[in-house]
Amino acid sequence: MANRIITFTTDFGVTDHFVGTMKGVILKLNPSAQIVDISNNVHSYDILDGALTIAQAYQYYPSDTVHMVIVDPGVGTHRRPLLVTTEKHIFLAPDNGVLSLVFEREERLSVRHVSAEHYFLQPVSQTFHGRDVFAAVAGWLSKGVDVAKFGEEITDFTRFGAPKPKLVNPALLKGVVLKMDKFGNLITNFTVKDLPQLFAQNPPAFKFVVGNKEVITLRTSYAQGMHNEVFAIVGSTGFLELATNRGSAAALLGANRGTEVGFVMDDAAVAAVAAATAGQVPG
Amino acid sequence: MANRIITFTTDFGVTDHFVGTMKGVILKLNPSAQIVDISNNVHSYDILDGALTIAQAYQYYPSDTVHMVIVDPGVGTHRRPLLVTTEKHIFLAPDNGVLSLVFEREERLSVRHVSAEHYFLQPVSQTFHGRDVFAAVAGWLSKGVDVAKFGEEITDFTRFGAPKPKLVNPALLKGVVLKMDKFGNLITNFTVKDLPQLFAQNPPAFKFVVGNKEVITLRTSYAQGMHNEVFAIVGSTGFLELATNRGSAAALLGANRGTEVGFVMDDAAVAAVAAATAGQVPG
Amino acid sequence: MANRIITFTTDFGVTDHFVGTMKGVILKLNPSAQIVDISNNVHSYDILDGALTIAQAYQYYPSDTVHMVIVDPGVGTHRRPLLVTTEKHIFLAPDNGVLSLVFEREERLSVRHVSAEHYFLQPVSQTFHGRDVFAAVAGWLSKGVDVAKFGEEITDFTRFGAPKPKLVNPALLKGVVLKMDKFGNLITNFTVKDLPQLFAQNPPAFKFVVGNKEVITLRTSYAQGMHNEVFAIVGSTGFLELATNRGSAAALLGANRGTEVGFVMDDAAVAAVAAATAGQVPG
Repeated sequence: MANRIITFTTDFGVTDHFVGTMKGVILKLNPSAQIVDISNNVHSYDILDGALTIAQAYQYYPSDTVHMVIVDPGVGTHRRPLLVTTEKHIFLAPDNGVLSLVFEREERLSVRHVSAEHYFLQPVSQTFHGRDVFAAVAGWLSKGVDVAKFGEEITDFTRFGAPKPKLVNPALLKGVVLKMDKFGNLITNFTVKDLPQLFAQNPPAFKFVVGNKEVITLRTSYAQGMHNEVFAIVGSTGFLELATNRGSAAALLGANRGTEVGFVMDDAAVAAVAAATAGQVPG
Repeated sequence: MANRIITFTTDFGVTDHFVGTMKGVILKLNPSAQIVDISNNVHSYDILDGALTIAQAYQYYPSDTVHMVIVDPGVGTHRRPLLVTTEKHIFLAPDNGVLSLVFEREERLSVRHVSAEHYFLQPVSQTFHGRDVFAAVAGWLSKGVDVAKFGEEITDFTRFGAPKPKLVNPALLKGVVLKMDKFGNLITNFTVKDLPQLFAQNPPAFKFVVGNKEVITLRTSYAQGMHNEVFAIVGSTGFLELATNRGSAAALLGANRGTEVGFVMDDAAVAAVAAATAGQVPG
Repeated sequence: MANRIITFTTDFGVTDHFVGTMKGVILKLNPSAQIVDISNNVHSYDILDGALTIAQAYQYYPSDTVHMVIVDPGVGTHRRPLLVTTEKHIFLAPDNGVLSLVFEREERLSVRHVSAEHYFLQPVSQTFHGRDVFAAVAGWLSKGVDVAKFGEEITDFTRFGAPKPKLVNPALLKGVVLKMDKFGNLITNFTVKDLPQLFAQNPPAFKFVVGNKEVITLRTSYAQGMHNEVFAIVGSTGFLELATNRGSAAALLGANRGTEVGFVMDDAAVAAVAAATAGQVPG
């Protein structure tokens, strides 16, 4: 227990002292805690980006890992610090929805409002709860303090749904780029489930439309791509990506996080989709 | 002892092999050393930036932590490697002032010139003492070698005062931006002590002047800020910051590290300050 | 054995979840593995950059360290995952030459094709073998599974020679910038051995030519350089660097990775070199 792993998913960056200071707080409480960075380069203030980052990584960690997810533009206000336990994992995060995708994936949840101030660093600043609240609580948790000691269970915590593609008309499904990764791959919010016809035995003609560019190929590995060809591919986390072989699809398409991506089908495909999406409310 | 924590505060970056190589040197000497990065993105060659970074973080670490602070533009010259012990901490750094803010905060100091070359990696290069001198000494220190074994105490080490705000005339106190953080917050060299009237029960009218922009609000949390409003706020390390809610104050003000910041008071405030700063020599 | 050190040299960056996810995979298999980043900022898809990075660092690590070197533009194709053991170290990498400089330095090598799929994460994605193959195998290796269990030895693995300077004519040796480091130093592919006359007791007049700029000084420490002077210096890994004191040689020369660097000697030097390089085939 005293060796518990603590992960960091934050927007604090790696240039300032923030993350280093938080690690000191943890190690002062528990010198044998094992701290691992998932990413400290979440886009500043971007709760969705933080939610996506932790959602892609946490399942790969051992049971009882403490995941700190600190994207906290509301620091110093009345937004509550949360301690969330799922069947296998523990999360510390501000109550602003940054755990929404974890909530989406987990059946059994206990969400507590961390209010036991004697576990905080005193005095608590109004600008750095990552240090004064979250790191301190993580340190105590890693020493084996029971979760119930930190505060009462609540049910009115903040959660949002990840943005889903919207059916604009029978021939057009409109999605968005959730994230551009380090390689310039564009992770969209289309999943395999959203586009069943694309993965059918005889997929119809289709195109992804991004600004005035079109993407008409589906590949199964990056290396299959022709020079400067942008193609669609199912990424390692289940989302469709727009990618290119040994280059940046973002640069080739002039697209980035937030760019709209249309999925357009020919008439035959439209009919199939009409059947498949019967009952879905257009966005 | 053999589990001692070693922190890194350097300008070596995270793109090259430098930091990874230094960690190898330490782990080869002591595979159970626990290495933690405070920041390896100190501005290249910037001794003040290194001094600020370590000063903000070290107090949060457990006693007996070894802090490596390597910003070393004089590598390969006669500048001495230092081993500094304070009441609770140990520091390794070049003798160029990068520990000045530690010296400022600590009452009891022992400063040694690290000269015991048999603890160095041989041959010692003239361009990478982070590897050949500092990491090697950190490794031995973490194994429990007594500090006295590394060299004699000295008193003529380099130190500088952090730049303090200067009273230009009774109505104008001139400061500077010490640092822009990852969020675009501008950390100034004004502290609460420099501006007592600002935190009095009835603070007078005031403005911070940055180029042709003015900042006239004081907030206590980032989230209180109006859209695109730049305000002043006491940051988590005691310095006044110029900040904005969910955005970059640096971008809004067109300011950065080194930008001058004037603190201007109205007549009533001037009188109060005149009393408070009686005896202070204008800069 | 269960405490084995695992290093990361990858082009996965520190902004996405990739590296954090891989660390989770390892720690789930072996919670006491000790993971250290050499660099996760290898240039995207750049096998030579990855090869240089690991080559500069690995020798400094303790025996039996597992070095993961994942620059893998061919992920999802038939390129094989390799497990390489040298006298002291263990490497995991795709079979694309990213270990070429390790192969160059090591006398005794065993190279295996990792094919024992029961050690992989299932299902294996076609886009993220860093997670599904390499991290999983590293976790098992760190638990003490014998290398022979992972697959058969092979001899037809990919390797390339690092680009060597070429003698264009008796007065001109043409090299290239291999890397620009965080400080803007330009690491060339000239080594001390390539330019013996430069390190002779009475070195001849020489110049390095970069575009329309010339570098005519050799220094032994960065701090010897005059303001804005670019000079040559033997770097900490044995390559000649073009550098400047407290500034960026890359900016001053308008050069970067891939820029050609000519080494030009006067007539006397030419004669000496002619003798020294007798038998060398001009490039």
